[in-house]
Amino acid sequence: MGKVAVVMGSTSDLPVMQEAVDILKGFDIEVDVDIVSAHRTPEKLFDFSKNAHKNGYSVIVAGAGGAAHLPGMVASLSPLPVIGVPIKSSNSIDGWDSVLSILQMPGGVPVATVALNGAKNAGILAAQIIGSSDQCVLDKIEVYKQGLKEKVIKGAEEVRNKK
Amino acid sequence: MGKVAVVMGSTSDLPVMQEAVDILKGFDIEVDVDIVSAHRTPEKLFDFSKNAHKNGYSVIVAGAGGAAHLPGMVASLSPLPVIGVPIKSSNSIDGWDSVLSILQMPGGVPVATVALNGAKNAGILAAQIIGSSDQCVLDKIEVYKQGLKEKVIKGAEEVRNKK
Amino acid sequence: MGKVAVVMGSTSDLPVMQEAVDILKGFDIEVDVDIVSAHRTPEKLFDFSKNAHKNGYSVIVAGAGGAAHLPGMVASLSPLPVIGVPIKSSNSIDGWDSVLSILQMPGGVPVATVALNGAKNAGILAAQIIGSSDQCVLDKIEVYKQGLKEKVIKGAEEVRNKK
Amino acid sequence: MGKVAVVMGSTSDLPVMQEAVDILKGFDIEVDVDIVSAHRTPEKLFDFSKNAHKNGYSVIVAGAGGAAHLPGMVASLSPLPVIGVPIKSSNSIDGWDSVLSILQMPGGVPVATVALNGAKNAGILAAQIIGSSDQCVLDKIEVYKQGLKEKVIKGAEEVRNKK
Amino acid sequence: MGKVAVVMGSTSDLPVMQEAVDILKGFDIEVDVDIVSAHRTPEKLFDFSKNAHKNGYSVIVAGAGGAAHLPGMVASLSPLPVIGVPIKSSNSIDGWDSVLSILQMPGGVPVATVALNGAKNAGILAAQIIGSSDQCVLDKIEVYKQGLKEKVIKGAEEVRNKK
Amino acid sequence: MGKVAVVMGSTSDLPVMQEAVDILKGFDIEVDVDIVSAHRTPEKLFDFSKNAHKNGYSVIVAGAGGAAHLPGMVASLSPLPVIGVPIKSSNSIDGWDSVLSILQMPGGVPVATVALNGAKNAGILAAQIIGSSDQCVLDKIEVYKQGLKEKVIKGAEEVRNKK
Amino acid sequence: MGKVAVVMGSTSDLPVMQEAVDILKGFDIEVDVDIVSAHRTPEKLFDFSKNAHKNGYSVIVAGAGGAAHLPGMVASLSPLPVIGVPIKSSNSIDGWDSVLSILQMPGGVPVATVALNGAKNAGILAAQIIGSSDQCVLDKIEVYKQGLKEKVIKGAEEVRNKK
Amino acid sequence: MGKVAVVMGSTSDLPVMQEAVDILKGFDIEVDVDIVSAHRTPEKLFDFSKNAHKNGYSVIVAGAGGAAHLPGMVASLSPLPVIGVPIKSSNSIDGWDSVLSILQMPGGVPVATVALNGAKNAGILAAQIIGSSDQCVLDKIEVYKQGLKEKVIKGAEEVRNKK
Repeated sequence: MGKVAVVMGSTSDLPVMQEAVDILKGFDIEVDVDIVSAHRTPEKLFDFSKNAHKNGYSVIVAGAGGAAHLPGMVASLSPLPVIGVPIKSSNSIDGWDSVLSILQMPGGVPVATVALNGAKNAGILAAQIIGSSDQCVLDKIEVYKQGLKEKVIKGAEEVRNKK
Repeated sequence: MGKVAVVMGSTSDLPVMQEAVDILKGFDIEVDVDIVSAHRTPEKLFDFSKNAHKNGYSVIVAGAGGAAHLPGMVASLSPLPVIGVPIKSSNSIDGWDSVLSILQMPGGVPVATVALNGAKNAGILAAQIIGSSDQCVLDKIEVYKQGLKEKVIKGAEEVRNKK
Repeated sequence: MGKVAVVMGSTSDLPVMQEAVDILKGFDIEVDVDIVSAHRTPEKLFDFSKNAHKNGYSVIVAGAGGAAHLPGMVASLSPLPVIGVPIKSSNSIDGWDSVLSILQMPGGVPVATVALNGAKNAGILAAQIIGSSDQCVLDKIEVYKQGLKEKVIKGAEEVRNKK
Repeated sequence: MGKVAVVMGSTSDLPVMQEAVDILKGFDIEVDVDIVSAHRTPEKLFDFSKNAHKNGYSVIVAGAGGAAHLPGMVASLSPLPVIGVPIKSSNSIDGWDSVLSILQMPGGVPVATVALNGAKNAGILAAQIIGSSDQCVLDKIEVYKQGLKEKVIKGAEEVRNKK
Repeated sequence: MGKVAVVMGSTSDLPVMQEAVDILKGFDIEVDVDIVSAHRTPEKLFDFSKNAHKNGYSVIVAGAGGAAHLPGMVASLSPLPVIGVPIKSSNSIDGWDSVLSILQMPGGVPVATVALNGAKNAGILAAQIIGSSDQCVLDKIEVYKQGLKEKVIKGAEEVRNKK
Repeated sequence: MGKVAVVMGSTSDLPVMQEAVDILKGFDIEVDVDIVSAHRTPEKLFDFSKNAHKNGYSVIVAGAGGAAHLPGMVASLSPLPVIGVPIKSSNSIDGWDSVLSILQMPGGVPVATVALNGAKNAGILAAQIIGSSDQCVLDKIEVYKQGLKEKVIKGAEEVRNKK
Repeated sequence: MGKVAVVMGSTSDLPVMQEAVDILKGFDIEVDVDIVSAHRTPEKLFDFSKNAHKNGYSVIVAGAGGAAHLPGMVASLSPLPVIGVPIKSSNSIDGWDSVLSILQMPGGVPVATVALNGAKNAGILAAQIIGSSDQCVLDKIEVYKQGLKEKVIKGAEEVRNKK
Repeated sequence: MGKVAVVMGSTSDLPVMQEAVDILKGFDIEVDVDIVSAHRTPEKLFDFSKNAHKNGYSVIVAGAGGAAHLPGMVASLSPLPVIGVPIKSSNSIDGWDSVLSILQMPGGVPVATVALNGAKNAGILAAQIIGSSDQCVLDKIEVYKQGLKEKVIKGAEEVRNKK
């Protein structure tokens, strides 16, 4: 079954990105975490991205803030689907810099972008990608969605009763 | 092998979305096209989304403009990975409405968002998702990327010679 | 007399949306509250929206944050006037995502959008809609507006005296 | 049955606002059109707004561009529901000025804002407001929505056949 | 000599607007303060604006937040120069709503807009307007500017010495 | 009576700025036009600004595009009221650069900012400033406003008749 | 004397970037032009950037549009000063994506960003960098600036005479 | 060897700008700090800028917030490369005012703009400019970059071990 690599530009991104790791583990999907800085460790970026599909990964999740080049550069170097997580770092201009740097990739090199700080959704999306060819994971996603629904239904009941 | 559904909110979105269809066909991936309007045919939206994975699709590409609810609603109803294409329609506020309506999905329901009018990249991303578990498609993506590179190298030569 | 349904995407929206409930109760208008998540309980969204006018509601107030699809989807499924309240949730991009996702509805499916976090105004607007065919409610709105005026006049006096 | 007033700040707004008039006439709802400039005819603004509900109107649709004060000022002077149409005029800053000037009303004085240049939706919303207490109009809205659906279904068929 | 009226939409604007009052008093210019809400006391808005030039005022400073209609409506009703102060109120969308609602006035009805929360500058501008025909006030402004300069020069010295 | 200086950063700004000149001439106010580039003729900027009040000007209108420093630098060097006109030049980012460069002046140095490309309003504002101490000009402004009103009233009649 | 490399992500950027080349040639500075796509030729990006200072370049000018990673990636790989030119490409979101992707670099890896489409200024800046240690180039820059000034002075005369 | 001048508009900018000073000292580059306000000490601005290259400086770093005219005005008066640091001051509109006022300089007068509050990067860029003609400084930059890399590599190890 597919394995997921979760990489980020800085250790300061870990609190946000951990949500991707946790949700993937919850789906019993193997996940590796690493720090790969496009701007400070470009050689590592090359090595990691060029070899990810050879190293058994089937999806890459990449998070970065500010002028966030990591997801796009990984996508330029790997044939795998790359999920980008814009991170609202300090000195960001309200997160717009990170969102646009990841989303607006040129024709030929897509990055599957999720919401600002949306690492949890990145993890779910990685699971869905694996699930698109793995019935067992697809089933887990349906169970997960059922759980979301039940939580809302229960919350709704409490709200109606409180009234 | 996986089959891709390309849906959009209006026939006026077809000129943009056709690029997704064309690139997928170029990868020899089966693709179906349909118009599904979240706001005008909500029942069809339900039927389509609930059954897409049962109907043999492994990825859904959904494009819409303005307050673009189609990709997110498909994602809420299907366990499959959903790729959202923001479309810059007339009366859009510079495309921001479409981008944010698709990108900023709440925790639990991701949409893999690509650039404004980025249907070509949506098609490539769909192919990469299939390729993540299908070596033959993965190989085609590497060939495609090699083609992009060669085109740039050739353009570069012309520019240097022109000087 | 008309009855109002106040729905929202998550229990975390309740502190904002309660203002709509309170002001409607202040106008002696019957109001029901429920949690209906477009993305996590789409079936409930369908049931609620399709039947709201049959269940005695004459106006629907719907609040949601981020990529806020609830108001627009309710509007697509109900013939009733739908008032949308953009909510500035955590991880929102300054509220722009919610505002644009609700406001920029396509031709044919309007949502009556109020200000960011403007649940109080949503409640007043719902009352005005009922008041447009109910003289008693219209009178109460005039009294309410008179109250606003008097409060400003009194505040103005204090400011002038303080000088 | 309710009558609708459609007002706008300038004759140059008429091409946009005519869509509100046309759709209301299509619903057999009586509609009057007038030019009322908040900034150039403030006395007329007062007279019109103060008396609209006495003159038989049950809903007011007000369109304006730039620093668009007409909808909000009408709302401050009338107890009726006021629908605001932001108009993208020349020298507007991409329509943001008009959208924010109409949408972001303070607590106590709502304006039911529709999309940029969304006069058609303003007309439909006015009809829905009347329909919320008039079964005949409500039925027409359901018929109208059915028409929207059928048009999409037909367009979808053509797209699928063309393939 | 000219007298200045400082008005604002709400008592909650007073902490910001007080800076305009204080600086004007520092120039020995007579100043009156009042609360005039465009949306809650429209009649007072009319009375105040129509008569300001007859009541001895030569400049009006008007501050408001959100969909800020006060400065523009005063300008529509008075022949006097009107200075608008955008105020970043709670629930404002980062102040953009207030800035654009005041700045983007249509041709024929200018508002002299200053920076977000820039009440001090509004006061100085009012003094400069009076000073444009009153040598004594003009002299005070030159003295004031000299004071600004000296403060910077002194701060610069400290910075250079600290090094 | 006061004389107005209309300056701009480039001859390419003249088509926009001419509107300020024309309206001032319409009020029989003396006006001089000049090109003063903050970035290309800083010495002229200094000479002009330092001496404007000594040369008989009572108001300065300054227009510029992009990173528009002219209005603010004139204001830093002159005790006179300075009206800034943001100009939407080519390569501007939708005019935001020019608007914010002129509007957001620091405490102590105001610029009376008008709408994007709002040179006509800058001219009217200059006239109002002169009119604040010159009854004859004030009267002309009232006549001008009356003219605006009559034009709207006439347009309104035509719209109502056309119906 | 220093040599400048002007690189860009695509041949479609050449019309904009040519201005940098032309102005550098006008200063008699040697300049080489090449196409280096961060996303399509990442290996060339590495080779070029790693060796630029060894190949005799003293400044690099890099232009790109959309999610523009070229300038930042060159800066991450080269010790030389890198000047970034944001380019407003088709499907850009008004140029914001390109501006923020280049400007908002993380601590440690600066890119000297110029205005949107500001390739001419990038060329001048490159010349100034060389001029900071080369009196002859510095002198040429002073002559160039003198030329700008004279052009404005002449334009100003024409405007004053036309009046 | 080159000397760097670090100037800023206000002592309140010092906490941000100190990072430029510190990093330059770390490279053993001589640096002077001063307060030069474009709006409050325009004469000092002129003297400083006109003479900087004669006073032995080879690069100027200038930081300012709001309508930030200091970097651009220094650039208009000096032939040296000028690095601009946008500062997010209080009452700034999210830093956009400062960024656009510095970045969007007209053709002929570049400012090398760095990220919002990016004073550290301004210092590094100044060092790179000096290093472009000074092998010793260039070597230090390579060492500095090597340090950045090692820090990331070490952080990455810790993250992988923690897992």
